[in-house]
Amino acid sequence: MIKRSIKKMESTQIDGNEVKRVSMKLLVGREDQAPNFAMRHFLVEKDGHTPRHHHPWEHEVFILSGTGEVECGGELQQIEGGDGLLIPSNDLHQFRNTGESPLELLCIVPVDSDCGEAVPGS
Amino acid sequence: MIKRSIKKMESTQIDGNEVKRVSMKLLVGREDQAPNFAMRHFLVEKDGHTPRHHHPWEHEVFILSGTGEVECGGELQQIEGGDGLLIPSNDLHQFRNTGESPLELLCIVPVDSDCGEAVPGS
Repeated sequence: MIKRSIKKMESTQIDGNEVKRVSMKLLVGREDQAPNFAMRHFLVEKDGHTPRHHHPWEHEVFILSGTGEVECGGELQQIEGGDGLLIPSNDLHQFRNTGESPLELLCIVPVDSDCGEAVPGS
Repeated sequence: MIKRSIKKMESTQIDGNEVKRVSMKLLVGREDQAPNFAMRHFLVEKDGHTPRHHHPWEHEVFILSGTGEVECGGELQQIEGGDGLLIPSNDLHQFRNTGESPLELLCIVPVDSDCGEAVPGS
């Protein structure tokens, strides 16, 4: 078994033109021989957001704390702790922190995309 | 996109000889056309535990709140909020609530096992 705690892990800042104040902790990934999917913890600081992008693999997301909004496939939804989401593959999507506290979420992705390529960050 | 909240979902009691005081909410599953994995929320009440069993698919688990222990492949680990775990396929495992409050966790499973069968509860 593998066990890691977000309380003890170092976070990796996510850089990019379209990303703002987002860091990640890879709880379980392809280097752990996870056969199918990777579990990542994201912290989106106040006024931060993930990139507005699309890709040929899905996300499943669980909101741990904070408040925000998610845009996906032209739809906008408010999000808060306890929400679970499926972001379908190829849908344009973005998570934005609209609250005063950090938006904390888990994001699970497949380790491989349909064409057999490694999913970035998995 | 699909969005559901554990605050609004009905829970399903998990029955079985080896299960005690466990209920589940299926946040995203195969009926949602989740292509690769299913995200489930489990509540293990005080003194409760999941079955001590093994199966040919992995779990990835995130502990949301509460305290407990997990046995996996002959190893015993204490668990608390913020812990992420990989339970490898075929390892004998069990989650037990050893605290005074509910043990709450997310458990992600593939929707299909290696032999192409639907994973139960996915």
